Amino acid sequence: MIETTPAPGRRADEILTDARNLCEPVLREAIAWLPDPLRLMGGYHFGWSDVDGSPRSARSGKALRPALTLGTAVACGGTTAAAVHAAAAVELVHNFTLLHDDVMDGDQSRRGRPAVWKVWGIADAILLGDAMHALAVRLLVAALPAVAASAAVAELEMTVIEMCRGQHEDCGLGAARLADVGEYARMAMGKTGSLMGCACSLGAICAGADAATVSRMNTFGRELGMAFQFVDDLMGIWGDPAVTGKPADDLARRSMSLPVVAALGSGTIAASELAAMYYGPPPDISMDTERAAALVESAGGRHRALRDAQQRVDAAIAALIDPSTAEDLVALAHLVSHRDR
Amino acid sequence: MIETTPAPGRRADEILTDARNLCEPVLREAIAWLPDPLRLMGGYHFGWSDVDGSPRSARSGKALRPALTLGTAVACGGTTAAAVHAAAAVELVHNFTLLHDDVMDGDQSRRGRPAVWKVWGIADAILLGDAMHALAVRLLVAALPAVAASAAVAELEMTVIEMCRGQHEDCGLGAARLADVGEYARMAMGKTGSLMGCACSLGAICAGADAATVSRMNTFGRELGMAFQFVDDLMGIWGDPAVTGKPADDLARRSMSLPVVAALGSGTIAASELAAMYYGPPPDISMDTERAAALVESAGGRHRALRDAQQRVDAAIAALIDPSTAEDLVALAHLVSHRDR
Repeated sequence: MIETTPAPGRRADEILTDARNLCEPVLREAIAWLPDPLRLMGGYHFGWSDVDGSPRSARSGKALRPALTLGTAVACGGTTAAAVHAAAAVELVHNFTLLHDDVMDGDQSRRGRPAVWKVWGIADAILLGDAMHALAVRLLVAALPAVAASAAVAELEMTVIEMCRGQHEDCGLGAARLADVGEYARMAMGKTGSLMGCACSLGAICAGADAATVSRMNTFGRELGMAFQFVDDLMGIWGDPAVTGKPADDLARRSMSLPVVAALGSGTIAASELAAMYYGPPPDISMDTERAAALVESAGGRHRALRDAQQRVDAAIAALIDPSTAEDLVALAHLVSHRDR
Repeated sequence: MIETTPAPGRRADEILTDARNLCEPVLREAIAWLPDPLRLMGGYHFGWSDVDGSPRSARSGKALRPALTLGTAVACGGTTAAAVHAAAAVELVHNFTLLHDDVMDGDQSRRGRPAVWKVWGIADAILLGDAMHALAVRLLVAALPAVAASAAVAELEMTVIEMCRGQHEDCGLGAARLADVGEYARMAMGKTGSLMGCACSLGAICAGADAATVSRMNTFGRELGMAFQFVDDLMGIWGDPAVTGKPADDLARRSMSLPVVAALGSGTIAASELAAMYYGPPPDISMDTERAAALVESAGGRHRALRDAQQRVDAAIAALIDPSTAEDLVALAHLVSHRDR
């Protein structure tokens, strides 16, 4: 969605496919280790099986976070083999937070299928999330040398706490009358940036990188995560559901997103009309989403999100010590800013 | 509630008070590290502050688990100083599971005050539990040497997974027509025995004990945890609320507990009448709890729970390599079997 130079090196889709192929056996082994019925529910959540446990061939998530861990390990002079368990741990934490977020937000579907809590109830969805959190940490200490494991676990758990803070703020944003762009960015850093930063930190730790390098790679991941979120926000209004696979219903749901927050805070006449549409009628009155999208655009919200996403990608790439030795990471950065799904 | 010889050495209440005094500063420091409002909610949950953050002087929980960790460390030739962070980590995991269990079970109060989810809502209670889980693990890797940290973290997370399984089974027991005593014991091991076993394993790990000793101490804690649960079950029917500080309402709530499960499975006439009272009327019809308690007793449920609790305490003490070097643990074991609150 943003104009940049073409991605060098391997195509990003291949990088994601490779990451998925490397990680999935580790993830499957981890989930298989859970006691039933958590194992069944975990397999369903990842898209490997149906509610009754029969296998499905559909692929699971995008594997962007595992690809960041593996790409960072290689960029820091390590191997994918030494980082694959850390990549799987990050994916487990991502999915643990999805399971809990779906309960908190009342989101009924996940990746086009009923969410775990809709199928098995809230209690089991909370428990499966808790168990995946535990599995992620167990995977790190089982697979990494003790010193690297301690560093990786500390990083992962600080990230979980930051994500909890971000999700708390996200739950509150709907109620808040006017979040400003800074507040929104802070929430997005907690919800999305922090775990992408952690994915990169863990890759660097697995490669034996020094603390300064781990910190730079963390910045790369965080900035990229912010870009990812802002592009997601753009797709939540102007995306094509046939391509993204999910409805572009952010305005209909009166969700907060960077374009909306920026538009509402613009001080324009369009902002006033948009605020009246967002906050005036009771939540069950449906929204004229075409009109709302036009108002967000004329109030400068779309432009702001496009610009901020590009700036974040640029900041991510600037954090790389030598982009020429990090071809896969640069390709993933371009994918994030160009993606349409 | 069970007759045994008097506890040797220090009085168990002193041991618990010492454990609480050692652990609380570490717990307070950990909670203070959380971002607001998780910090505020955490302080409220532990009983250190009111809803608005103003300090309270009331004490928090019993500190039995921290006392087990510290006592095991000393019994294995280590120091309490080397084990205090592990003791606090176990207490954090215990409280993380309480927070989530209260959401799942719809329990409105905790330690005589409204549960966190009643005050701040379900989303924040889930997030606070997630953050406390993360804090526990972070505490271990921050405080222990890397090799001990890896062993301790692996043990803790395997325990969390076992606890998730136990809580899942507990959620299902109400609906099940007739759980047998074996099924009930398995659930109780997941919910209560496993974390007390972990508390002891971690104490042994902090003392540098070998794997065989860690495993024996784990058995000590698990068996003691089962005794603790069975005594809790007895107090849930015959306890004095003025002493225990909580209502003896297990029968009114038609909860499953060892006395009830044993009575229902006894094949007696009393069992049939009890089953009719438990499963016959709709849940909103109140139960004649005096009659139900008499039936549980005449069907042998009370005797069975008393006998099993004593057997578990005996098995716990038998797991100690040399009870004479584990005075505090023996005193705690006797406290668990004699306790009336």
